Amino acid sequence: MLTIWTYDWVPGGEDFPRGFVRDLRLRWACEEAALDYQVKSTPFDNRGPDHFAKQPFGQIPFLEDDGMTIFESGACLLHLAKKSEKLMPRDPVGEAAALQWTIAALNSVEMVSVPWAFLSWSEGPDNGLADWLEKRLAHVEAALQGREWIAAGRFTVADIMMADVLRQMRRGDMPGHPNIRAYIDRACARPAFKKAFADQHAHFAAGDRARRI
Amino acid sequence: MLTIWTYDWVPGGEDFPRGFVRDLRLRWACEEAALDYQVKSTPFDNRGPDHFAKQPFGQIPFLEDDGMTIFESGACLLHLAKKSEKLMPRDPVGEAAALQWTIAALNSVEMVSVPWAFLSWSEGPDNGLADWLEKRLAHVEAALQGREWIAAGRFTVADIMMADVLRQMRRGDMPGHPNIRAYIDRACARPAFKKAFADQHAHFAAGDRARRI
Repeated sequence: MLTIWTYDWVPGGEDFPRGFVRDLRLRWACEEAALDYQVKSTPFDNRGPDHFAKQPFGQIPFLEDDGMTIFESGACLLHLAKKSEKLMPRDPVGEAAALQWTIAALNSVEMVSVPWAFLSWSEGPDNGLADWLEKRLAHVEAALQGREWIAAGRFTVADIMMADVLRQMRRGDMPGHPNIRAYIDRACARPAFKKAFADQHAHFAAGDRARRI
Repeated sequence: MLTIWTYDWVPGGEDFPRGFVRDLRLRWACEEAALDYQVKSTPFDNRGPDHFAKQPFGQIPFLEDDGMTIFESGACLLHLAKKSEKLMPRDPVGEAAALQWTIAALNSVEMVSVPWAFLSWSEGPDNGLADWLEKRLAHVEAALQGREWIAAGRFTVADIMMADVLRQMRRGDMPGHPNIRAYIDRACARPAFKKAFADQHAHFAAGDRARRI
């Protein structure tokens, strides 16, 4: 039995950050691969030594598997991918393709998109990282030309990471990038994504009710 | 025989970006594991369809292995780690530790440090990402307390990634973070790092001479 750890509660309303907290990536992967899992909570407030011992940056998610824990959503996804061919092809070429695109989502796209979103809170979307983000998105748009999924000619763990990174930008219809828009829509139409998304909402709604008592 | 692909030349002087181009991560890993490799060049100027077919963001490095290519320095390191226990422990706990810290270097540290450095060119080091960077460095500083290497009680591929990400910041003596400073020094004192660093300098010096003819 795998255990996905997330916060007991997150601030904000129905639309954000609920539905975007990164435990969703792990839920989604477990649903795609039909892996047996449960979800447990660590306090959002007053993160203590227990939390930092398992996630040294004081964040979530982290994954518990057979007595060991592993943090970073990217590392957790690659760890889960070892358990199921549904997440990662077993031939060397397909495996390399899924691995490189998983890392590309983290280090070529999210490395720009998350700091851009961070600066957007104080400086607006036309901040000092906007041009760089557009260049990176243009490369992803080109890579998706004629492709249903980003790697290996099939859905893989790389799509969980890339689609989640792209939808996190919440750029509406992703102007100028129709391939990205259609790709996000395809990913979010998958039953495993819908289940993970609904379950995360239910989890944080329950946390919200518990705080109000 | 592995082939590490990098640029034929990079702009700038002796000190930067020479010694910091990301093919160094792959050279370093191959040297640590005594893997047989060669280095080939793709043009820095006029990057064409051949380059984008192998690296969709038009960057380097990418790695050629037995007829297939893989891009993203993080993905290349994890690919190389499959070839040698010197780069990645073979027990599940050690493997998970090395994996999570490799991804943490990319997605918890470099995701802040590289955009911070990017903004520093136009806005100076006290830009909108400076506080966030300091918080992330404080967590790394705490994680290194009492540790020689970042994961699994030994040198792993995670140290290649984390030490390179940290030294890329070029923050001199890393004020306020003596553990990080000592960690970078330990990593850069390794013969494999020194060889990779010297070889990269020689590669780009040769590219420089070729352009001047």
